[in-house]
Amino acid sequence: MCELLGLNSNVPTAATFSFSGLSARGGRTGDHVDGFGMAFHDGEGCRVFRDDGRACDSPVADFLRRQPLRARTVVAHVRKATQGAVDLSNCHPFQREWLGRHWLFCHNGDLGAFRPPLDGGALPLGSTDSEWAFCWLLTQLGRRFATTPEWPELAPVLAELMPQLAAHGVFNMLLTDGRALYAHASTKLSWVQRRHPYARPRLVDCDLEIDLATANGPSDRMIVVATRPLTVGESWHAFEPGELRVFSAGQSVWHAQTAPAGANAEMAAA
Amino acid sequence: MCELLGLNSNVPTAATFSFSGLSARGGRTGDHVDGFGMAFHDGEGCRVFRDDGRACDSPVADFLRRQPLRARTVVAHVRKATQGAVDLSNCHPFQREWLGRHWLFCHNGDLGAFRPPLDGGALPLGSTDSEWAFCWLLTQLGRRFATTPEWPELAPVLAELMPQLAAHGVFNMLLTDGRALYAHASTKLSWVQRRHPYARPRLVDCDLEIDLATANGPSDRMIVVATRPLTVGESWHAFEPGELRVFSAGQSVWHAQTAPAGANAEMAAA
Repeated sequence: MCELLGLNSNVPTAATFSFSGLSARGGRTGDHVDGFGMAFHDGEGCRVFRDDGRACDSPVADFLRRQPLRARTVVAHVRKATQGAVDLSNCHPFQREWLGRHWLFCHNGDLGAFRPPLDGGALPLGSTDSEWAFCWLLTQLGRRFATTPEWPELAPVLAELMPQLAAHGVFNMLLTDGRALYAHASTKLSWVQRRHPYARPRLVDCDLEIDLATANGPSDRMIVVATRPLTVGESWHAFEPGELRVFSAGQSVWHAQTAPAGANAEMAAA
Repeated sequence: MCELLGLNSNVPTAATFSFSGLSARGGRTGDHVDGFGMAFHDGEGCRVFRDDGRACDSPVADFLRRQPLRARTVVAHVRKATQGAVDLSNCHPFQREWLGRHWLFCHNGDLGAFRPPLDGGALPLGSTDSEWAFCWLLTQLGRRFATTPEWPELAPVLAELMPQLAAHGVFNMLLTDGRALYAHASTKLSWVQRRHPYARPRLVDCDLEIDLATANGPSDRMIVVATRPLTVGESWHAFEPGELRVFSAGQSVWHAQTAPAGANAEMAAA
């Protein structure tokens, strides 16, 4: 299995604090030692850092903990290999251009032998079930959209597709085009919103506290999503099994309780 | 305009020495200050570092100069914007998955208003002529190949396509799938091979010399390609205008003198 981290903000925001917590789980407080990745995505501009070393002590991770790179959406992943070798090609986030935007995908879980046919629009580079699932997702979306969908159009379609993936095993995922952050939990995912008046959270995995009121302005808003809460001192919400949420500009803007494959999803305004 | 750097080796090789020279041209010894990128590509595994800061003093570039990441193919680019804003989305190398491999592309030059129709298989994320040319190239290749071509199949097709791009302006480029490195010059590009017995090159742009015999084994072979020679103390070869070369496992394995659009290319064994 693996662990996921996602951030979505209304202003470009650094993620060094949260990544310090997540990356500790990559070999120090957790055994997710088979590589990691971290991506900064601001709409058009997107950059992905990946390494097949341990996030707790890889030089790339060390750089990312020290260097406050900023973006409106950040996703990160520490890997514990269940399928596919320990190799750069199997490190998340996976990325593809689709309809003129960069799409990034991270997965925690195991989809067993799920290897449906792909039509060639997106093909895997590595050997994980996760990347195959991402390619399958883009293939399905490619059949439904001819121009880039924004989240109000995309979210209900994802709500139909998520259960089809989750039917094959554990499927917790983050997906983003750098505008909205889509998060689905089949078993485990939590989220928290940070806004004025700010809390003073402390990392669970490191002896590190942050004064959010000093680091952020009074109108800044940010969502943090993680496999397990990264902090104490603020209120995390656990996803329900089958829940899909959309975060945009630092707010939870949409959610749905997706139904098992074949049934209809029940959707709700956030 | 911009400057290009490519390395191709028979064993995973660090590029800190060459990147020290190139990145100096990103603000210290040259005015290519509008961002940069560096990619490490080893077949399946591929990672790209990009920044919209100056390569001479950006923290990302500083990390890349200090950290000897290794790969069999490395490409790098320092940008001086001619088309498109100074933005992460316009920093080379551009990357796309095509037929199950990562393809990377860097361009030096200016193709004017060249914006041919694209069929949607690959669409630009930023606003440069360079990325559009890359998408056009992948579109053309997509019409010719249904499975991933290796260099003996791809090279003659590139030799037909290069003049069609070069007809629109200056088109010096590097293209790679992490196996072979394809290099085309319409005006300016040079290459050098490093192998036993090694020279002791010194950077033109920094007070830095390398003892290649200490850094490399006796059976290692490496090609370095650059817009302008990066070193003195070794024998660089200038590309002829219209020349396309393929480098694989640290050797020049194929070259052709491409003809103006419409005419046939003259090809030769390396």
